[in-house]
Amino acid sequence: MNRQQIVAQIRQKQSFLCVGLDTDERKIPQHLLNEDDPVYAFNRAIIDATAPYCVSYKPNLAFYECNGNRGIISFEKTIEYLKTNYPNHFIIADAKRGDIGNTASMYARCFFEAYDVDALTVAPYMGEDSVKPFLEYKDKWVVLLALTSNKGSHDFQMTEDKEGVRLFERVIRRSQEWATDEQMMYVVGATQGELFKDIRRVAPRHFLLVPGVGAQGGSLEEVCRWGMTDDCGLLVNSSRGIIYASAGDDFAERAAEKAHELQEQMSKLL
Amino acid sequence: MNRQQIVAQIRQKQSFLCVGLDTDERKIPQHLLNEDDPVYAFNRAIIDATAPYCVSYKPNLAFYECNGNRGIISFEKTIEYLKTNYPNHFIIADAKRGDIGNTASMYARCFFEAYDVDALTVAPYMGEDSVKPFLEYKDKWVVLLALTSNKGSHDFQMTEDKEGVRLFERVIRRSQEWATDEQMMYVVGATQGELFKDIRRVAPRHFLLVPGVGAQGGSLEEVCRWGMTDDCGLLVNSSRGIIYASAGDDFAERAAEKAHELQEQMSKLL
Repeated sequence: MNRQQIVAQIRQKQSFLCVGLDTDERKIPQHLLNEDDPVYAFNRAIIDATAPYCVSYKPNLAFYECNGNRGIISFEKTIEYLKTNYPNHFIIADAKRGDIGNTASMYARCFFEAYDVDALTVAPYMGEDSVKPFLEYKDKWVVLLALTSNKGSHDFQMTEDKEGVRLFERVIRRSQEWATDEQMMYVVGATQGELFKDIRRVAPRHFLLVPGVGAQGGSLEEVCRWGMTDDCGLLVNSSRGIIYASAGDDFAERAAEKAHELQEQMSKLL
Repeated sequence: MNRQQIVAQIRQKQSFLCVGLDTDERKIPQHLLNEDDPVYAFNRAIIDATAPYCVSYKPNLAFYECNGNRGIISFEKTIEYLKTNYPNHFIIADAKRGDIGNTASMYARCFFEAYDVDALTVAPYMGEDSVKPFLEYKDKWVVLLALTSNKGSHDFQMTEDKEGVRLFERVIRRSQEWATDEQMMYVVGATQGELFKDIRRVAPRHFLLVPGVGAQGGSLEEVCRWGMTDDCGLLVNSSRGIIYASAGDDFAERAAEKAHELQEQMSKLL
C-alpha cells in the first residue's frame, strides 16, 4: 500500500486509528476458549467490530510467538482474514526486528513475501545494512524505532552526541539517507509530548506510528498539535484500551465503542 | 545453565565454540529435501557431527520464521533434540528482541518458558524496561547487543556522547545496573579487532558472544588476545563457515571437520 492509498483511507474514514492486536490468550473472554483457535476467533470479532473506525491493524508478534507454532497459525490466519475481508486496511507486523544483512533478508522474505504484510517495525541499533533489505519491496514500509513510548526510551534514545544531536534525531536523519518518506515511517511514542516538535524538525513529512495513547497515558490532542502534517502523517495506535474494553460476551461491541470514540476525536482533529 | 557450568564445559571440551544454526532451506543438500522436515533433519545431522567440538548452539530465528508455522515446528524440534540429547550444550536463541515491558514479558515467556532455551539475544535501543523482564528467570541469560559485527555497527553504536563515551560503551555500562555478569552477556563482533580492549575496560568479566569469525572475516587470535578472561569469557560463533562447509552428502562430516579445526585452534588459545 502506498502513501496516497493510506491518506485516501484516512480521509474517507476520518480516522488515523491503528488497532493493536496484542491478543493475550489469558485475557480474552472465557467463552472463546472453547473455540478451535481462541486467539483467531477473538481477532476476527475485534476486526469485524472495529474495521469501520480504523485504517490499520498492528498485530504484535510477541503475543503470537509465545504460543509456539499454534500462535504462528493464529497470526497467519489473522493476516489472511484481514487481506481477504479488509484489503484497504494497512497491516503492520510489530516485530521490531534488526539483524545483519543476510538475516534481515530472511526476515524481509518472512514478513513481506510469506505473510505479505504492508509494514514491519524495525530496530535501528545495527545500522544501515540491517534496515536496507526491508526496503527492496515496492509499496512495503519500514517503521523504524525512533523515540519509543516507554520509560526506557530515556536510557539511550535521548543521549546527546558531541554536536548536541540526540540519538533518536540521529536515527531519523541518518535513515533518511536510506529511504524516502514513501517507504519509511518512524515510531514515536504518544507519551513524548512536545518532543514531537523536535521530531517534525528532522522529519517534517514522514508518517509517524504513535503508540502509547490509552493504557500508556499519551494525549491524542498533544500528538496532533505537534505531529500532524497536511496529509495527516500520523497513525495512532491503541491496543489494550480497545481490545480489552470488556472481558465479557460484549467484548466486540465495547471494542467498537472505544474505537468509535477515538475515531470521532480524530475526525475533529483532522 | 549458570556461569560455572558453562566454564566447566569449556574446560572439559577445550572449546568455546558456538555453532550457529542459520539453516536456510535453499542451501541445504538436495537429498534432505525428501525428508518430512528437511531443516530439522539437517540440524540433527549437524548437531550430532559437531557436538563434541562445541559448547553451544545458536539457532537464528529468522531462518525458521521465514517458513511460517512449519519453520517454528523445525525450531521447536531442534531445541527439543538438543535438550534431550545434549543437555550440557548452552542454547542461545538468536532473535534480537526488544520491546516495551509487557511485550518483553511475552517474549520472555516464549523463549524461557515455552522453548526453555538458556539465553536470548536482546536489542538495547528501548532501554531498561525492555530488558528487565528477561532477567527474572534463574540461570537464563540476556545476550545484549553491544558492538555488532556488521558495517552498520558504525552508524549508531560508535557515536560518542558529550563525555566521549560511545553508545556501545554506554549500553554496557548502563546495563550493568540491571544485571550481573551471571545473567548478562554482550554481543561483540569478531570484526571489531582492537575495540575488544575498550570492551574489556567496561566489562572486564562478562562473557562475550562473538559472531563474525569465518564468513564475516574476524580473526580468532585477535579476539582472544584482547577479549579472553581467566575463565575464558568468550563464546565464539561460526555459522555459515561450519554448517555449509559442503553442500553434498558429506555435509555433516565436513561440518565436523570445520568445527574440529576451530576447536583445536581454541584449545591452543585457552
